[in-house]
Amino acid sequence: MDIKEKSLQKHYEWAGKIETKVKAGLNTQEDLMLAYTPGVAEACLEIEKDANKSFLLTARGNQVLVVTDGTAVLGLGDIGPLAGMPVMEGKAALFKHFGDVDCIPLCINSKDTEEIVKTIKLLEGNFAGVNLEDISAPRCFEIEKRLKQELSIPVFHDDQHGTAIVTAAALINALKIVNKEMSSSKIIINGAGAAGIAIAEFLIHLGAKNIILVDRTGILSKDIKQSNSAKDNIAHKTNHQLIKGDLSEALKEADVFIGVSVGNVVSKDMIKLMNKDPIVFPLANPIPEITPTLAKEAGAKVVGSGSNLYENQINNALVFPGLFKGAILAKAKTISSSMMESAAYAIANYVKEDLKPEYIIPRVLDLDVHKAVTLSVMETAINEGNVRK
Amino acid sequence: MDIKEKSLQKHYEWAGKIETKVKAGLNTQEDLMLAYTPGVAEACLEIEKDANKSFLLTARGNQVLVVTDGTAVLGLGDIGPLAGMPVMEGKAALFKHFGDVDCIPLCINSKDTEEIVKTIKLLEGNFAGVNLEDISAPRCFEIEKRLKQELSIPVFHDDQHGTAIVTAAALINALKIVNKEMSSSKIIINGAGAAGIAIAEFLIHLGAKNIILVDRTGILSKDIKQSNSAKDNIAHKTNHQLIKGDLSEALKEADVFIGVSVGNVVSKDMIKLMNKDPIVFPLANPIPEITPTLAKEAGAKVVGSGSNLYENQINNALVFPGLFKGAILAKAKTISSSMMESAAYAIANYVKEDLKPEYIIPRVLDLDVHKAVTLSVMETAINEGNVRK
Repeated sequence: MDIKEKSLQKHYEWAGKIETKVKAGLNTQEDLMLAYTPGVAEACLEIEKDANKSFLLTARGNQVLVVTDGTAVLGLGDIGPLAGMPVMEGKAALFKHFGDVDCIPLCINSKDTEEIVKTIKLLEGNFAGVNLEDISAPRCFEIEKRLKQELSIPVFHDDQHGTAIVTAAALINALKIVNKEMSSSKIIINGAGAAGIAIAEFLIHLGAKNIILVDRTGILSKDIKQSNSAKDNIAHKTNHQLIKGDLSEALKEADVFIGVSVGNVVSKDMIKLMNKDPIVFPLANPIPEITPTLAKEAGAKVVGSGSNLYENQINNALVFPGLFKGAILAKAKTISSSMMESAAYAIANYVKEDLKPEYIIPRVLDLDVHKAVTLSVMETAINEGNVRK
Repeated sequence: MDIKEKSLQKHYEWAGKIETKVKAGLNTQEDLMLAYTPGVAEACLEIEKDANKSFLLTARGNQVLVVTDGTAVLGLGDIGPLAGMPVMEGKAALFKHFGDVDCIPLCINSKDTEEIVKTIKLLEGNFAGVNLEDISAPRCFEIEKRLKQELSIPVFHDDQHGTAIVTAAALINALKIVNKEMSSSKIIINGAGAAGIAIAEFLIHLGAKNIILVDRTGILSKDIKQSNSAKDNIAHKTNHQLIKGDLSEALKEADVFIGVSVGNVVSKDMIKLMNKDPIVFPLANPIPEITPTLAKEAGAKVVGSGSNLYENQINNALVFPGLFKGAILAKAKTISSSMMESAAYAIANYVKEDLKPEYIIPRVLDLDVHKAVTLSVMETAINEGNVRK
């Protein structure tokens, strides 16, 4: 049985990958009086007096909303909120297993930015954080921006920033191997959706100065009007030499290729256009832009992948459990760029002396890497004072 | 330490009475591929093809939304959505422990009927049912009505119908003891809020013909304009003799007193106005309309209570776990009045040969009574064809 069939069968067996676990005992009359009426009234009154107590007296303090509208699910696209649920539940399971974060996965049956923002706002009080998921660009940018302005708990769009953080972690280590600097490397990102733009923004934050984004229409350049304002915005921060052309043109003398686009758009010949010791991260899933095998044959020195079937899987599951756990423990008000930076370095530095071309990034199953991310993010949030009282 | 202090301390210890439990193993690379990418895509695609599969392939099929706006929490009133959360979590814990129903407790930060209805509608696809909770009258009537019209899953306002069902179950058995019939008994309900009106409606459904409701302004009568349309409506179905006056007037020659009002409004002398073998259910909590002790001294033959400190606790926790589990197992589209009736009789009949004045209603902690309710409700839903395909 292949993985698809087996997964479907398991989903029927599980009938939900998460369930409710009761922490309060309910076996005696006194148990009931403590967990429910009449005792529960005391907890209610404490929260009525001080709203912040909701983080302590209910599940809220360790609870994150994982929410989608089902418009950009995996590589499947706009399959709707119901069909997006198995991914949200999977995410919730990973959150709990790797970060000990309790999650409520919810799908919202609307594609309207206002309705989505409004719904999440009305539910804010139940959560310590919001993880946006699988919402299509450019709506995801507006939804995230609005929620960051209007909520007082951390809001994080994983498809953007989780991908950016883990890609940056891998790149930090790959650059060490080839003895290049972030600031002087020519970095090509193919795909200018949520992930591509977020990766560019974050690498700029980390010191990259020479990034070129490419989408289906070719190289993004600030002197060409783009199809949405997010692309316009990133075009102004990248491609300072206003290079025009297609992906092949962009790859000439590039040091790094990062693919967050679609399968089979990069050939061996295109890799050969790159500088010495090229770093190649073809992250499209399940079919990569170029297979790691072909990329190596074409001379790639370090290769990362979106799939766990190859070495160096660049998986944002390395990020979100620890990032949120750290934010929650710190009582963070937002997830700041310095918290994201600390997460990237925590992941990169976890590799230590084992660093080699085949091992630039920790494995998701290694529970200790999530603890490292948690601690690093928590300390950063506390040190910068980004915490509620 | 008294129950209040101990409960508050336990709430701090628990930091949430429920948490996420992961059902899917996540210990190996294959586990990850089955529960998350790439395998999860198959479950998504199955649901995209057939929306009903969301009940089978995700937690939805056993998952109920427990939702409030925090406007009528316990006897505490409008303490707000954050402060209502400990009760919602307690309810979720009871749902799981007694009915094996997974719950997501959510508080909505709005008192606007449209906003509340809209929010729940947008989230419908995550749930197999909706349990409305602690929403003040008369808004709760409109919200419930709208949701019943607009959702295709069961919607149930526990403060109304759960209370009505369990009270009816107790009354069915109490009437057996005193050898009276529902249809010929004079039944006084003090309190004409959500619970009082729902009890009246449900007892009429079960055959009661002589009910009188009393609120702070006195006896409800159809020739007196009431303060809201729900009261107007029930006034037309009760008090056919258009009796006027206060609670004392209503209690003259009454067979049954049901109190869902406030503490200490019934005296021993008032009980003495009732017919022979009076049935007295002073359900106000924590302070009853009259204490069971005083009621008995005044001649009450059967006494029920809202508190577990006395015999015959009339607790709607006897209803909702099994009622929802039965509805879910049957794939019910609604919770019909016949399903509610079957729940009431399942609870009443559970007592069997043990029936006596001190034992008219099962104990909540008895897990078997919840199974009896589950089976009865499930069979009723199936028999009446109230099920989705």
